[in-house]
Amino acid sequence: MREKTVTEAHIDFSEYLDRRRLFVEQRLIGYLIATDPDILWQSMRYSVLSGGKRLRAILCLSAAEAVAEAAAVPPKENEVFETVMPCACAIEMVHASSLIHDDLPALDNDDYRRGKLANHKVFGEAVALLAGNALLLYANEVILTKTPSSVDPSVIAALVTELARACGPMGMVGGQVDDLAFTGSVDAVKSSSDNDGDLLLERIHCRKTGALIRFSLWSGAKLMGAALSELDVLEKFANTLGLAFQIADDLLDVTGDIKSLGKTPGKDVQAKKVTWVTVYGSERSRRRLKELENDGLALLDNGVFDPAATTHLKSLLQYAIHRSS
Amino acid sequence: MREKTVTEAHIDFSEYLDRRRLFVEQRLIGYLIATDPDILWQSMRYSVLSGGKRLRAILCLSAAEAVAEAAAVPPKENEVFETVMPCACAIEMVHASSLIHDDLPALDNDDYRRGKLANHKVFGEAVALLAGNALLLYANEVILTKTPSSVDPSVIAALVTELARACGPMGMVGGQVDDLAFTGSVDAVKSSSDNDGDLLLERIHCRKTGALIRFSLWSGAKLMGAALSELDVLEKFANTLGLAFQIADDLLDVTGDIKSLGKTPGKDVQAKKVTWVTVYGSERSRRRLKELENDGLALLDNGVFDPAATTHLKSLLQYAIHRSS
Repeated sequence: MREKTVTEAHIDFSEYLDRRRLFVEQRLIGYLIATDPDILWQSMRYSVLSGGKRLRAILCLSAAEAVAEAAAVPPKENEVFETVMPCACAIEMVHASSLIHDDLPALDNDDYRRGKLANHKVFGEAVALLAGNALLLYANEVILTKTPSSVDPSVIAALVTELARACGPMGMVGGQVDDLAFTGSVDAVKSSSDNDGDLLLERIHCRKTGALIRFSLWSGAKLMGAALSELDVLEKFANTLGLAFQIADDLLDVTGDIKSLGKTPGKDVQAKKVTWVTVYGSERSRRRLKELENDGLALLDNGVFDPAATTHLKSLLQYAIHRSS
Repeated sequence: MREKTVTEAHIDFSEYLDRRRLFVEQRLIGYLIATDPDILWQSMRYSVLSGGKRLRAILCLSAAEAVAEAAAVPPKENEVFETVMPCACAIEMVHASSLIHDDLPALDNDDYRRGKLANHKVFGEAVALLAGNALLLYANEVILTKTPSSVDPSVIAALVTELARACGPMGMVGGQVDDLAFTGSVDAVKSSSDNDGDLLLERIHCRKTGALIRFSLWSGAKLMGAALSELDVLEKFANTLGLAFQIADDLLDVTGDIKSLGKTPGKDVQAKKVTWVTVYGSERSRRRLKELENDGLALLDNGVFDPAATTHLKSLLQYAIHRSS
């Protein structure tokens, strides 16, 4: 069979993304049809169902698919989806929760998100705050009550434990606190040694966005009964992809436009946030991204996975790096 | 043996409460010694370790003790404590989380709590909001990782599922939304039929404070392997105690003083909040409290539990009703 052209591969991957995004959207709608108290669920739906790339949910599905392909009798695609979808959707709910809280006046004070008014501009600060809490709690409930009973209860307990860790003080919430603590101090970080600056940047990224991305890949693999060697490769890959995703985000803040971003660009620079781009500049950030791309691709080709099984994970890394929004 | 005098029984019960409160405090300190990010854990500790009655944790312990006493070979007190303490402490963390968020300017905008500055007045709104989130997540982690391995994993999964429900849209967060939605509309509720008013009041109470109180008693009993008949009695008792606790709280808002309350009294009336007292007045609220006290005591004497096993649960109901803070 001849190798696919770049264009053909690109079309294939677009279809791959679209199909999974559609499944995730449909399932999220199903999980969020409740109406009591009405205003709370409206607010929850407003943010969860406002589009977005669904990258975290798709990473969860793709990791599950990569592990499934290696099984003696690979399960069918819809079996993989059924097993993983509650967790994939829970991750999107947790992510939406963090965006609602981030946009509040007490934190980043953003009026727009994905080209629409931020949750608190539509529902008020009180309901937005509570909808963020409700999504965090409901995400747990979805994993615990919607994951098929064929999954071992100890795996479900492990998922909820790791999700709490990924979101808690050593994860997302800790990263949000670091982000606040270092906002405005970009000059101080710039003048510190390269090594200190790197450590600080990696720590903030690792927690703020990295922890949930790591959980996305880990949980998908775990649900399909991944071997330790597979979990190990995926964890390293997740660290690489998470950092690359964040640096690409930081670059978009200086190169993106409001239309494709759906939010105001230039805010990091204005707020003197500590990001790869504000500390090291665009040129060096792009070089680091290229390194991460090479590292990530090499990790998946180290012999643990069949190369064919990780085609989509590789494309997802490249997508995280080269996206325009 | 002669029956104890009222004074003797009162001293016994005070000792009972003090001893359990001390254990809970010590264990909470142990769970909260982390320091990274430092400001986040400081903020979490500030609110969790600021005193309080620890009523919810003690209800959890007392329900466990009542069930334990009925066992063929009753476990020792310290075995009961070891089994239940992670869950009892998690409940206090969730409760503290809700108080931090309630006090934020976006919600009740309170500057004081338990006679000390509110969390957001000390740490700022951003850290307070994130500390509330962190406590919600860490509570789950404590149940999942600190409950002794002798407890069946399916029981632990049930605890986390029910905690998410007790806190989520149909529980605490839903109650906070209702509370907001009906703040200011006390006149409209007063002029509605008694039946509608009752239903609305019970719905708000049932969620806002009732759900976590129900979880406290249920989880303690469940951890000790309670029979369905025991869980059933305790659920009804929890509903009675939860409502009584809330009406007593509403009464304290009009009769309490700032020193013993540790917060500004009269705020419900000022904000035209829908409470038993603002809708029906103090007289009728006191009558309802008396009914609830009688109902609650009768429930525990219906033959499912040995009367001696529920002495402390009965005292806890009376304490919830007759307290001065």
